[in-house]
Amino acid sequence: MLATIAVFDLVKDDLQRVETRLHDIPLRGEAEFELVTEAIGHVLDAGGKRIRPALTLLTGRLYPSDPKKIISLAAAVEMLHTATLVHDDVVDGALLRRGSPTLNARWSPGATILTGDYMFARAADLAAQTDHVRVMQIFARSLMTIVSGELRQLFGDAAFRQTREDYFKRIYAKTASMFELATEAAGVLIGASESEILDLRRFGHDLGIAFQIMDDVLDFIGDASQVGKPVANDLRQGIVTLPVIDYLDTHPADKRVDELLQNYHDDDAVLSIVADVRASGAIDRAIDAARNYVRSSKVALLRLPENEARQTMLAVADYVVARNY
Amino acid sequence: MLATIAVFDLVKDDLQRVETRLHDIPLRGEAEFELVTEAIGHVLDAGGKRIRPALTLLTGRLYPSDPKKIISLAAAVEMLHTATLVHDDVVDGALLRRGSPTLNARWSPGATILTGDYMFARAADLAAQTDHVRVMQIFARSLMTIVSGELRQLFGDAAFRQTREDYFKRIYAKTASMFELATEAAGVLIGASESEILDLRRFGHDLGIAFQIMDDVLDFIGDASQVGKPVANDLRQGIVTLPVIDYLDTHPADKRVDELLQNYHDDDAVLSIVADVRASGAIDRAIDAARNYVRSSKVALLRLPENEARQTMLAVADYVVARNY
Repeated sequence: MLATIAVFDLVKDDLQRVETRLHDIPLRGEAEFELVTEAIGHVLDAGGKRIRPALTLLTGRLYPSDPKKIISLAAAVEMLHTATLVHDDVVDGALLRRGSPTLNARWSPGATILTGDYMFARAADLAAQTDHVRVMQIFARSLMTIVSGELRQLFGDAAFRQTREDYFKRIYAKTASMFELATEAAGVLIGASESEILDLRRFGHDLGIAFQIMDDVLDFIGDASQVGKPVANDLRQGIVTLPVIDYLDTHPADKRVDELLQNYHDDDAVLSIVADVRASGAIDRAIDAARNYVRSSKVALLRLPENEARQTMLAVADYVVARNY
Repeated sequence: MLATIAVFDLVKDDLQRVETRLHDIPLRGEAEFELVTEAIGHVLDAGGKRIRPALTLLTGRLYPSDPKKIISLAAAVEMLHTATLVHDDVVDGALLRRGSPTLNARWSPGATILTGDYMFARAADLAAQTDHVRVMQIFARSLMTIVSGELRQLFGDAAFRQTREDYFKRIYAKTASMFELATEAAGVLIGASESEILDLRRFGHDLGIAFQIMDDVLDFIGDASQVGKPVANDLRQGIVTLPVIDYLDTHPADKRVDELLQNYHDDDAVLSIVADVRASGAIDRAIDAARNYVRSSKVALLRLPENEARQTMLAVADYVVARNY
């Protein structure tokens, strides 16, 4: 049984159905694919709060709709998300994710790449089971956005990577685009009006931005749910997030971050920056920014039907800025 | 201007339009993506006879249909094919393909993986422009087949890799599944009957099998169009193809292939096996097998309308077993 968070109680049973769909890997049963299916199961099980599929399921309850198609879409969204993580881990050479060894740590890059590719293909296959061409179009566009964001991170200018503009582009591509997909595509499936679909997209977008800001804040202040993960893991990997950008805005003469990005193995340097960023009030300002996005996401739902599903979506929005501390 | 082979003259202009679509990369124009768009252009231009998109275009002319959608599909098919090659080259660590340096040779694996991912996403995006959900379903299924084949190659049993059964499974996944996609999905778009769609799928399947057998034969006897490529490149990489399998069937006591697969850097060993395989008649028998598949592919078209497009498809089938020697 999947352990879901309380705010998802309304769609608990459907989340379990999504879980079943996710683990129903067409390769299963053939001996030569035993390792692969096991690995995909492992990756799927390695944490994740299933917030993206939960948003799809909740959107699916705003209007009467075909639960089977909504479940296919929710599974497609989570499979796509997980597939991008698998490739990310190869690109970054990451050996751990959420405290578990990555596929990349256990396997050759080749096996990991192909397993990720298979998950992409399966995500497309699940999305195709919605029988809705517009859903597929949104799906393809989202994947292009996500990958473009990663390419920008790899090929972009180093100075630009320390700007607020780049940060928001990056977290849009990395997180908000997938939240958008989860709610916009579900809006299409339930036959929402064009204006409601835009509202749902906006809800997903703003909530996704808030979610990623909070993730980046938790990376900075220590996330109780991720025991053993070092503080400021992003910074250690040369990734500059909102707290640091905000700190640099008010301390333009401080060159330590620049220096760190050229030599990021110095633990003392990391910890001294972390201490100063915390002391500067940048964390609180980042949390405020996330709260503003949550507020805006809730406004986007105002014109949607006032039912239990909408009520829960509002609660999920609040949960995003309240979690884990 | 794209240099196309004579047998594609009927769809020459449309092939040029496909080329334009392929090179119309949404990332183009943003400075940070200059290297990526250039790399995708380079990969697309590095050879390839465009036989898959040509088959889509020809199928598209069997019945009156929307040329824009057919061109989108043809571009999607070629983009998908090229994306799989980009990832293949990372998985195999290949530094050259068709005599040109691979992306993998010029870049980090990370950059290459993400560029391949972007091409997958773009392929899905192009396929979505057909506005046809069944086309998307066929597309997703084909991608799953292709990737499963590669996974089987990686995780499969070493002994099984020398069997005829494995060989046909492998070339189905690697090549015939994409030919199937090219013709079956086009059949859906032109509104062919279910029975005609099955015939078109069969045509693509059989032609794809014949094409790959011939590719494998050319690898063995030397392909005039690929100057500088060593003979029996597959065998050198530990890949056993039909000529070798056929030879082993008649020479079960010869253990040199087994030994080679465990130590494939010995050039003399490769050349002595190549000489014996050639002398055994295995090459001719492989060509006969390809001819039989071509014959069968042509039979599959018997019930399609007798027009110029079908005539050309039959000529393309003959071309597959007549090329390059």
